[in-house]
Amino acid sequence: MNFCSHCGGKVHLRVPVGDDRPRHVCRACGMVHYRNPVMVVGCIPQWEDKVLLCRRNIEPRKGKWTLPAGYLENGETVMDGALRETWEEAGARVTSLEPYLLFDIVYVNQVYLMFRASMETPHFTTTAESSEVLLVREEEIPWNDIAFRVMEKCLARFFADRLQGAFPFRIRQIQRHSR
Amino acid sequence: MNFCSHCGGKVHLRVPVGDDRPRHVCRACGMVHYRNPVMVVGCIPQWEDKVLLCRRNIEPRKGKWTLPAGYLENGETVMDGALRETWEEAGARVTSLEPYLLFDIVYVNQVYLMFRASMETPHFTTTAESSEVLLVREEEIPWNDIAFRVMEKCLARFFADRLQGAFPFRIRQIQRHSR
Repeated sequence: MNFCSHCGGKVHLRVPVGDDRPRHVCRACGMVHYRNPVMVVGCIPQWEDKVLLCRRNIEPRKGKWTLPAGYLENGETVMDGALRETWEEAGARVTSLEPYLLFDIVYVNQVYLMFRASMETPHFTTTAESSEVLLVREEEIPWNDIAFRVMEKCLARFFADRLQGAFPFRIRQIQRHSR
Repeated sequence: MNFCSHCGGKVHLRVPVGDDRPRHVCRACGMVHYRNPVMVVGCIPQWEDKVLLCRRNIEPRKGKWTLPAGYLENGETVMDGALRETWEEAGARVTSLEPYLLFDIVYVNQVYLMFRASMETPHFTTTAESSEVLLVREEEIPWNDIAFRVMEKCLARFFADRLQGAFPFRIRQIQRHSR
């Protein structure tokens, strides 16, 4: 950040009065510009004993597999965001969303909120964002070709919990260098 | 938003290629500026059968009562944020945080994540942000002087769940005009 989005003046980093950390403050109008973590919302769409995976048609990790998820937009609830992303990325309608896993990814300032969800029908399509969309059984998961560690951990947790027959809501952290 | 925070050029609202909604796009350098909901994290600090309330020393709702909570900062987990806010606003250390309620407040683009937490000792202090901090029993809650509806609903849910002896994680929405 170099310029004030309000007045166009130059910003500098300083600790505002009453604050405890540096912020981008405008030298001209004094406006303080805060930056905060962004939420990513998505789901594990389930049909019978299968889950729906999307093959990314866009960078980053084009060609790798993932679960439908994306940035929460202003004006929508976390659940609406997960529904929208599932539709946009997989052409699938899901229902009965249950909050399932929250992942802190501090090093990129993201918070993932993943739901479990049911597909009403086994319908889905490729989309601008997904070159392939597939319903897969646990033994068919392409573990070495999952796009993001957060999705790998989400899927692994899901199958472990399914074996136990219970899906408690959990918070986990993705570390920068761990597998 | 009037100016590009990257180059200082003027921005206008347009739908970027491949997008489906208007964004602030710089006329000079083309950068797209996204705006997303902000997370607020906090907790219900518990000591014996009491909860810890803070009387706001700052606007908005100065003089009204609330639970410790505030904006999640870059570089911290949701749990760390709740711990920090509890320390900053109430001078209290809490432990055993359990995710409890998520509130969508779409009309202000905020997502609240509230934890239940235990106080290790009944220690707390007034702070720059709180003119008074108190441990109160359910029957002492100043229901007519709670600063924000989200906190009123959070407290009401907590006491209802405590009566049932179970605190399932739930997602709720705060509507603009409802009580």
